[in-house]
Amino acid sequence: MLAEIITIGDEILIGQIVDTNSAWMAKQLNLIGVSVKQITSVSDDEAHILSSLAQAEERADLILITGGLGPTKDDITKKTLAKYFGMGFRSDAGALEMVTSIFKKYNRPLIDINIQQADVPDGCEVIVNKNGTAPCMWFEQNDKIFVSMPGVPFEMMYLMDDEILPRIKSRFTLPSIVHKTILTANIGESFLAKEIEEIEDILPDHIKLAYLPKLGQVRLRLSAKGTDDTTLNQEVEVYAKQIISKIQKFVVVDEDVPFEKAILNIMKDRGVTLSTAESCTGGYIAHLITQHPGCSSVYWGGAVAYAYALKESILGVQESTLNQFGAVSEETVKEMAEGAIKHFKTDYAIAVSGIAGPDGGTDDKPVGTVWIAISNKNKTVAKVFTFSNKRIQNIERSAASALTMLLNLLKEDGLKE
Amino acid sequence: MLAEIITIGDEILIGQIVDTNSAWMAKQLNLIGVSVKQITSVSDDEAHILSSLAQAEERADLILITGGLGPTKDDITKKTLAKYFGMGFRSDAGALEMVTSIFKKYNRPLIDINIQQADVPDGCEVIVNKNGTAPCMWFEQNDKIFVSMPGVPFEMMYLMDDEILPRIKSRFTLPSIVHKTILTANIGESFLAKEIEEIEDILPDHIKLAYLPKLGQVRLRLSAKGTDDTTLNQEVEVYAKQIISKIQKFVVVDEDVPFEKAILNIMKDRGVTLSTAESCTGGYIAHLITQHPGCSSVYWGGAVAYAYALKESILGVQESTLNQFGAVSEETVKEMAEGAIKHFKTDYAIAVSGIAGPDGGTDDKPVGTVWIAISNKNKTVAKVFTFSNKRIQNIERSAASALTMLLNLLKEDGLKE
Repeated sequence: MLAEIITIGDEILIGQIVDTNSAWMAKQLNLIGVSVKQITSVSDDEAHILSSLAQAEERADLILITGGLGPTKDDITKKTLAKYFGMGFRSDAGALEMVTSIFKKYNRPLIDINIQQADVPDGCEVIVNKNGTAPCMWFEQNDKIFVSMPGVPFEMMYLMDDEILPRIKSRFTLPSIVHKTILTANIGESFLAKEIEEIEDILPDHIKLAYLPKLGQVRLRLSAKGTDDTTLNQEVEVYAKQIISKIQKFVVVDEDVPFEKAILNIMKDRGVTLSTAESCTGGYIAHLITQHPGCSSVYWGGAVAYAYALKESILGVQESTLNQFGAVSEETVKEMAEGAIKHFKTDYAIAVSGIAGPDGGTDDKPVGTVWIAISNKNKTVAKVFTFSNKRIQNIERSAASALTMLLNLLKEDGLKE
Repeated sequence: MLAEIITIGDEILIGQIVDTNSAWMAKQLNLIGVSVKQITSVSDDEAHILSSLAQAEERADLILITGGLGPTKDDITKKTLAKYFGMGFRSDAGALEMVTSIFKKYNRPLIDINIQQADVPDGCEVIVNKNGTAPCMWFEQNDKIFVSMPGVPFEMMYLMDDEILPRIKSRFTLPSIVHKTILTANIGESFLAKEIEEIEDILPDHIKLAYLPKLGQVRLRLSAKGTDDTTLNQEVEVYAKQIISKIQKFVVVDEDVPFEKAILNIMKDRGVTLSTAESCTGGYIAHLITQHPGCSSVYWGGAVAYAYALKESILGVQESTLNQFGAVSEETVKEMAEGAIKHFKTDYAIAVSGIAGPDGGTDDKPVGTVWIAISNKNKTVAKVFTFSNKRIQNIERSAASALTMLLNLLKEDGLKE
């Protein structure tokens, strides 16, 4: 079964927002065995929406549409869908009740344009949106299904989880799609490819191998398509095992988890704790870690020590070190990591201090210079990196490098045990 | 001039990565007056790539393609482009030199599949990619331009900034597109729409108004299209002024900056400083702030106090407060904010403590319960929120609410001056 996703909204095409909905929907659809054929973003323009709907209807069985359902005049998705299906409008009692109750809950008066949110094309089935005022609409035509959902991510997510995915699962016999991911670090894409060339060459046609490089890590993804999950899983496991045994020392974990989550899992298994002392990454490493449920058994917290004063007061960096070597130096970053171990009483600590840019560089420490230190209770490892002149990139790469250094120290400590 | 963006890669269609490239490219194109008609994501599948190219060629003058240029077997963009344009292959000297020098720099042996990175369709112009091994390729056919770039974001960004955008600007006479954004807070989309209804009704056809709601803020965007920037800017300013005077008290700033950046600017203008004390947001607020260059003149840093011990040791929260009221309580969050003011010596502080979930809730403090406190040197304001059961959402909403509370205290303090 093939699906397409159409996201509607000028804000996507002028680049004001990043379309995160599509990736989330695609992931959920793949998990139940629906392949996504295409993702299309179009503007709030009637003619263009109509032609996208027609093209998607030709290619796919299921068309999921998000966006353009707000109460304001720039949103035309509902009107355009009515035109596409040749339908008139009716007010939907369930949708009106939901709109009314939401406004009551927030103690706000109900005005005309909110009431109009409950008007829907008269041939669609309404699926009540419990988290917002725009109803979800389900259309069928020529054996194709069209679902229109609001573009607000959490409203769309609830509708997908609670309503749309269960309906699709119960109505269709879906093929099995099995993915298996192997997360690697400390090796580049082309070297990995060379290492596992012979295994890749003998993969059967229904199993594909993809390389997904990102910030010093490469994910290898085996994808198999067939009729039976169990068989596919067994097949994929055979190839995964061959690959893993070939590149053992680069493998972080053989599941599709974010890098920091893989590290958290290793630390949780060992019963060790972590703290952070961040300057130029400004809380980004802490944020990466604390995105994950259950992180609190490993991660105790840390400091975002932007100002000199906080490096001294929270982390106990010596004033003389800062004055003599500067904030971006091996000496300072080591004191930051060791200070975190001491003051936050954790088994491991990450410290980062650098010049994220775009300003603040000097001749001997240009923008992109980043010192990273990792400590356990006995040892501190420090390393300097020279990244780019782009701030966000430098923050992300610093975080990835710090996590790789932490992984390497954990591996080293693991060998000793 | 119309452009389309085609992003190629199975990883997008199975939802493994979010396509952030398209939004960035769309933004840059709009800034130089190129409208993006459609963004299309397709898989690493020859037939599908070919049909997407053909459809885009029908609709647009400029087709920007990213992805599928890696050295490994799953990447087929280059081969497919050669087929589309009916071209053979040649090895490009400049591209080969770049590949060689990159491998030399990292002290790695050059293997066959890396050398093949320099093979290109023989009718394209090669634009050397200084940041990676995949060359950028420029094709022309039937007065349409096709540019193929690597999908690695920073490689694509450099190529766009340094090569592609300058070429497009010098070659075409582009229409003017002017956007003006008004950032509002503390009011919902439909109420805003009602407030400015009369202004919206008299907008001329070439000026559009869009409402972009996000986490308690709404951005109003006026977009004008014409032939002359100066005239458009003047026109847009007239309507923007009318709107602003109508909704004065909800306006944060009349430019398109992230919410936290608008707050940083207000604080910088007043010469006041900020620190953070985060529990459930885990460094996310610090990260939002420190994304922005120049933040260090306002933001001094803060604590990510996940464990009880760190709330006490870094922030000076009383053990008795934690024991009596718990970490997620008005008392604790106030002590966190006041502790930040005291220990980090800043003028303002944000503190957040909540249950981000999915686990850890109780009957009287369900998942999604979040206490937020904002302090200046004389006053602490605290408020409790009940968000959802989704962790990432709770983190994002907590941050947005904390920033709104900070803005409101800054406004209150501003009135007193």
